[in-house]
Amino acid sequence: MSVFWEDATGILAVNVAMSAAAFLVTWSVIPKFRDMFLMAGFFGVDMNKRGKEKIPESAGVIAGAIFLCVMFLFIPVPFHRHLTYDGAGPFPHNVFVEFITALLSICCMIFLGFADDALDLRWRHKLMLPTLATLPLLMVYLTNFNSTVIIVPKPFRLYFGHDVDLQILYYVYMGMLAVFCTNAINILSGLNGYEVGQSLTIAASIIIFNLSELSGECRDAHLFSLYIMIPYAAVTLALFYHNWYPSRVFVGDTFCYFSGMTFAVVGILGHFSKTMLLLFIPQAVNFVYSVPQLFHLLPCPRHRMPRLLDSEDKLTVSVVAVKRRDISFLGRATLKLFSALGIANVTEGAGEDGAFMQFDNLTLINLLLSFIGPTHERTLVVYLLLLQVSCSCVAFFVRYPLARIFYDA
Amino acid sequence: MSVFWEDATGILAVNVAMSAAAFLVTWSVIPKFRDMFLMAGFFGVDMNKRGKEKIPESAGVIAGAIFLCVMFLFIPVPFHRHLTYDGAGPFPHNVFVEFITALLSICCMIFLGFADDALDLRWRHKLMLPTLATLPLLMVYLTNFNSTVIIVPKPFRLYFGHDVDLQILYYVYMGMLAVFCTNAINILSGLNGYEVGQSLTIAASIIIFNLSELSGECRDAHLFSLYIMIPYAAVTLALFYHNWYPSRVFVGDTFCYFSGMTFAVVGILGHFSKTMLLLFIPQAVNFVYSVPQLFHLLPCPRHRMPRLLDSEDKLTVSVVAVKRRDISFLGRATLKLFSALGIANVTEGAGEDGAFMQFDNLTLINLLLSFIGPTHERTLVVYLLLLQVSCSCVAFFVRYPLARIFYDA
Repeated sequence: MSVFWEDATGILAVNVAMSAAAFLVTWSVIPKFRDMFLMAGFFGVDMNKRGKEKIPESAGVIAGAIFLCVMFLFIPVPFHRHLTYDGAGPFPHNVFVEFITALLSICCMIFLGFADDALDLRWRHKLMLPTLATLPLLMVYLTNFNSTVIIVPKPFRLYFGHDVDLQILYYVYMGMLAVFCTNAINILSGLNGYEVGQSLTIAASIIIFNLSELSGECRDAHLFSLYIMIPYAAVTLALFYHNWYPSRVFVGDTFCYFSGMTFAVVGILGHFSKTMLLLFIPQAVNFVYSVPQLFHLLPCPRHRMPRLLDSEDKLTVSVVAVKRRDISFLGRATLKLFSALGIANVTEGAGEDGAFMQFDNLTLINLLLSFIGPTHERTLVVYLLLLQVSCSCVAFFVRYPLARIFYDA
Repeated sequence: MSVFWEDATGILAVNVAMSAAAFLVTWSVIPKFRDMFLMAGFFGVDMNKRGKEKIPESAGVIAGAIFLCVMFLFIPVPFHRHLTYDGAGPFPHNVFVEFITALLSICCMIFLGFADDALDLRWRHKLMLPTLATLPLLMVYLTNFNSTVIIVPKPFRLYFGHDVDLQILYYVYMGMLAVFCTNAINILSGLNGYEVGQSLTIAASIIIFNLSELSGECRDAHLFSLYIMIPYAAVTLALFYHNWYPSRVFVGDTFCYFSGMTFAVVGILGHFSKTMLLLFIPQAVNFVYSVPQLFHLLPCPRHRMPRLLDSEDKLTVSVVAVKRRDISFLGRATLKLFSALGIANVTEGAGEDGAFMQFDNLTLINLLLSFIGPTHERTLVVYLLLLQVSCSCVAFFVRYPLARIFYDA
C-alpha cells in the first residue's frame, strides 16, 4: 500500500496550495451569502449581546460545501501515477475507497447538520443517521485493517495479559466514537467563536501529531489524515475569522456535525482513534458533566449558554429554577453530590414561596464562570480556548512520555 | 469481478425486502413531518388550486434520507461472504468502491437540493457541485472500466470505421450526463405528481431493462443497478402516494436532484448511459425546447407552470408578455421560427399600446396544453405520464429491434 505515496511531498504541496485557495474562497464568500441566508430565514439573534441584530446562521454549510469541492478536486492527485501511467501497477482501490468513504460520511453529516438547522430535528434522527453513516467506514476498517487488538498497559497485564482482542466491541467503540464526536462539540457551544475555535485547536493538534508521525511506520495513515485535515483546517480558519467576537455569522449545527465527523473519520481510518479521544478532553468532561441534564434526570432548557449581565456587558452563570417536587429523587441526589463536590451551586428553597430549587446549568462554560466570576464574552472564549490548548498539551504528554512508561518502547 | 455475485438471487431478495420496508417507512413517516416542515417555513402554496392552503415543501428530503439509510444497511449484504468467511478470496474493493461512490454522488445531490430549497441558490452553485460530485464517479469508471470506445452504426462506418475511441470526450459526455439528469427533471415540473411520476416511470423502465439483461454478459453491472434502483423506486413510490393530485406534500428540488443523480450514477456505473438517455426523451425535448428561455434569449419568469382557469378548475397555457424592444433580434427570430413550426403561439402587438409581444412559456407541458386545450390538472398529468411511458416503449424499440439493424447482432 505504501508504494504509491512515494511522491508524498509533492502531493502534500498540492494539498496545501488547494487548502490555501479554499481558505481564500471561504473567507471572501461567507459575507456574500449574508443576504441569501437572511432572506431564507437562516438567522439568529445573539442572546449574549445588547443589540438584537439578525445574524446569519448555519454558515458552516458554506465551509462544508467548499471543503467537499476541494476534496473532490484533490482526490485524483494522490493517484495521479495510476491514472496517467500504465506501469504504475494495479490501482490501489483499497486506498481510494478510504477517501471516498471518508467523504461520504462527512457529506452525510453536513447534510444532516443543515437539515437539523433548517428543520430542528428530533434526537432519534440525530443519532440514527450518524450511526448508519459510520457503517461504510467500519466496513472499510474491517476490510483494510481489521485490527481490533489493544495492547494492555503494563500495570494491568497481570490480569488481562499482553493484549486483548476486543473484536466486535472495537467496532461498537468506533461507531460510538463517531456519534460522540458529532455531538460533543455541539453541546459545548453558545459563545462567539467557541465551536470553531475548539475545532481549530483540535485540527491543529491532529496536524502536529500527523506531521510528527510521518517518519514512523504508520506514515501512510498519517498522510491520509493530513490530506483531509489541512483543507478542513483551512476552511475552518476562514470561518473562524467571521465567527470571532463579535460574530458576523453563526456556524450552526452544520459546522459541529461536519467537524465532528471529519475528526472521527481521520481518527478511525488514520488508526489513532484513542489519541483523537485524548484531544476531546474538555468535550468529554463537558459531556459527562452534562449527562444529568441531557438524559433528563434534571430539567434541561433549550439553551444552556451563560446569561448576559446587561449593565456590565459580561457573562455570568445561567441557572435553572424548578419546583422541588418536579425533580426526581435521583435528580436531587445528583445535585447534592455535585454541590458537595463543589462543582455546582445549588440553592434550596428558592422562589417566592420557597418551593423552588435553583441550580447552575451543568456545562463546562458555567463551571468556569462560577470559579472566575462574570467575564466578558471574548475573554471567556480566550480562556476556554487556552484550556483546550492545554488539554492538547496534556494529550501529547499522555501519548508520548507517559505512554512510554505504561507500554514497551 | 463476477465471482462474488454467485448468490445474487438471495441478495436481490434481501434488497427487495429492505425496499419494501423503506416504502412502508417513507409512506408512514411523510405525514408526520408535516408540522415540522410548516413550522420551519418549508411550505408552498399550490398555484394551480383555488384554495391557498400551505403545503409542506421539499418532502423529497425524507425519501432521500431514508434511501441513504437503506443503502447503508444494504451495502454489507452483497459482500457478506467476504466479511464473514476468510476463504472467499481478496475483498473486491473495486466493486465496493462503486457502491460508495454512487452513494457519495447521490448524498451530495440530496444535500445540494435541500440547500437549494432552503436558500434558493444561484445557477453557478447548482452547476458546480454536480460537476465536482461526478469526479469520483468518473475516477471509478476510469479505474474499473475505462472503456471509451463507441461502436459506430453501420451506415456511418464508411466514414468513421467500425468504432471510435472518444477518450477524454467520453468523460466529458458522462460529466454532462450527470448535470443534465439532475436538472432535466427539475425544469419539467410544476404539476401535482409529475416530477415523481416521471421519475417513477424512468425507474420502472430501468428495472425492466436491468432484469431483461440479467442473463447477458453484463450481468454484474445490471445487478449493481438493480440494487440501487429498487430501493430508489420504493421510496419514490411512497412519495408519489402523498404527492399525487391533490398534493399533500411538494417534493422540492431535493427530489429532482436526488432522482437525477441516482439515474446518472446507475447509467454511468451500469454501462448503459446511452440507453439511460433514451429514457429521458420527454425531458430532453423539454430541455431543447426551453433553451431560448433558459439561456435568456427570451425572458424567463421564475415559474413557467400552466395557468389556472379558476372558473373551470382547468389548466391552460401560461404566457409571457414583454415589450417588443426588450427582446433581442435573436429572440425575435426564435419566436418567428417556433411560430412558423407551429410549436408556439406568438402574438405581436399585444398590450394596450400594441408595443408588447406575447408568447407561450416554452415548456413541454404548455405545448401539450396548446394542442389539447384547457385540461384538468390530474388528467393533464395522466396524459404526460402516458407520454413518458410511450417514450420508454420507443426507447426499448430503439434499443432492441432498431439497434439490431444498425449494429451487428
